[in-house]
Amino acid sequence: MTTAAPTSSRALVEDVRRGKVSAIARLISRTEASPDAVGDALAEIHRHTGRAHIVGITGVPGSGKSTLIAQLCRQVRDGGRKVAVVAVDPTSPFSGGSILGDRVRMSELNSDPDTFIRSMATRGNLGGLSRATLPAVDILDAAGFDIVIIETVGVGQDEVDVVRAAHTTVVASAPGLGDDIQAIKAGVLEIADIHVVSKCDRPDANRTISELKAMLTIGMQLSSRMDWRVPVIGTSAVTGEGLDQLLTAIDDHHAKMTETGELDRRRLRIAEMRVLKFAEDMLRDRFENDREGRVQEIAEQVARLELAPEAGARRLLGQIQKEIAS
Amino acid sequence: MTTAAPTSSRALVEDVRRGKVSAIARLISRTEASPDAVGDALAEIHRHTGRAHIVGITGVPGSGKSTLIAQLCRQVRDGGRKVAVVAVDPTSPFSGGSILGDRVRMSELNSDPDTFIRSMATRGNLGGLSRATLPAVDILDAAGFDIVIIETVGVGQDEVDVVRAAHTTVVASAPGLGDDIQAIKAGVLEIADIHVVSKCDRPDANRTISELKAMLTIGMQLSSRMDWRVPVIGTSAVTGEGLDQLLTAIDDHHAKMTETGELDRRRLRIAEMRVLKFAEDMLRDRFENDREGRVQEIAEQVARLELAPEAGARRLLGQIQKEIAS
Repeated sequence: MTTAAPTSSRALVEDVRRGKVSAIARLISRTEASPDAVGDALAEIHRHTGRAHIVGITGVPGSGKSTLIAQLCRQVRDGGRKVAVVAVDPTSPFSGGSILGDRVRMSELNSDPDTFIRSMATRGNLGGLSRATLPAVDILDAAGFDIVIIETVGVGQDEVDVVRAAHTTVVASAPGLGDDIQAIKAGVLEIADIHVVSKCDRPDANRTISELKAMLTIGMQLSSRMDWRVPVIGTSAVTGEGLDQLLTAIDDHHAKMTETGELDRRRLRIAEMRVLKFAEDMLRDRFENDREGRVQEIAEQVARLELAPEAGARRLLGQIQKEIAS
Repeated sequence: MTTAAPTSSRALVEDVRRGKVSAIARLISRTEASPDAVGDALAEIHRHTGRAHIVGITGVPGSGKSTLIAQLCRQVRDGGRKVAVVAVDPTSPFSGGSILGDRVRMSELNSDPDTFIRSMATRGNLGGLSRATLPAVDILDAAGFDIVIIETVGVGQDEVDVVRAAHTTVVASAPGLGDDIQAIKAGVLEIADIHVVSKCDRPDANRTISELKAMLTIGMQLSSRMDWRVPVIGTSAVTGEGLDQLLTAIDDHHAKMTETGELDRRRLRIAEMRVLKFAEDMLRDRFENDREGRVQEIAEQVARLELAPEAGARRLLGQIQKEIAS
């Protein structure tokens, strides 16, 4: 018999599913502290996902991405839907790293119970995904948020991976940053379903928009199986221009994906990615928490040239399997 | 009984150990084509490594790194030692991507039987390590090269990882590129055992050298356990300045590591990294070559919300273990 104490895992999952903000925050915090300790709750949460539209928004620092997200949240709320943001960008004001004006706008959003904003710690000094990021998205999905936004900074492989965990990917650029070039470099041009050029009140914004459109024409062959013309939308935090157009594009993309079966394909692709990442994390964890020194022993044998690295890897996988089975 | 035909794995390993250039080239090519197909040869090669000094040289494109390496090779040869270069930088002239002057210098080196230069394909469109890179270093070590240089471009986690596979890491910067800042961003400042500022015939080189020295003073706490003062060496391809100083620093670093036991610690760290990378590669391979559709079945169950991602990862690791055991 499971007790129904308010802190029990089952009760917490129930409260999350009812959309109770304190329960959502608590389960995300517990997940950040130790995903393994709440493994059962997360498995239960996962069964109740699948309703939210997961939107990844990425862009280099200075691309106006965080302001854009704040305004997009208000746009979603104005239409009566619930919206959540998971920020994994350490430079994001959602993570506490920006100018006062942004912070004020954020806290306005925070006082609305149907808007949930959460920044996640990044893993290492080189940036990277928190292992709690995707479970947090699951939690918000199961809690009934209609749109869950993942905000990442557009540099590095891990960040590209997290955007690949989204159904729809929005890439934000700004004029005068050379962002377009940076976007190609990081491989994000190919993964964008929607391009946004922020600060389009600036005179040089048109050039950025044209350049992006030209690149998209060249890269047409790279687009997904679905017949979707990647839009380039100019937005302005000053005039509010383009925000409704962006939300419409996000909704259109979702409708098109549902219609064509692309949504199911992306869900499968996301599932593959999550399983693989989890397995890799288990390997890394095993390395970092080598309590009995058995991994160390393998490495020592390899260093002494008694064991080839490949044979060492096989032995490591074998050990992990034994531990999982037991 | 194993036949001694010239193409047999055992004969090839023997020829590699005798330093036969054609055998070295052939085994590296076979490794690039399929590391698994030559697994036994590579395991045998690994047993005969441990003599070479492995030097990682990294730097952003434009840092003058490839010219530096070409000159360093000549410096090593002038001292009567054998030197090999494994280039994993797609922008490197060793990989065929640079100006004519460089190419001419490279081909001079290529005609010397005691200098071996090989560029490796990079893995994906986002750059990254070839799985054959570290086996290639093993092959060159076992073939009797005294110094094996790994050249990587200084961006991205994978590139940092490959430099971590070296005993001594040299980071190249150039004046006027803002490279110093880029070096910090990519986390390479902390991993440098030796800094080189190329093009030091330029008037603005002194500023770059001073900036690097200042940053190193601030970062003193980050240095390794060994008492080693990271030198900042100015070099010039025009005047030849600094080249002898660089080779002396590389040799001094090796001597100091041997003396203090740091070399053994680094060998152990490299072994750990290789075992983990290999295990991760095995996981990825299993995903990409899912002949019986069993991984796909796991992903489908996760996508249908019948299985949590973590449980899927456990099942995946279990399957891999079974295949390895069989």
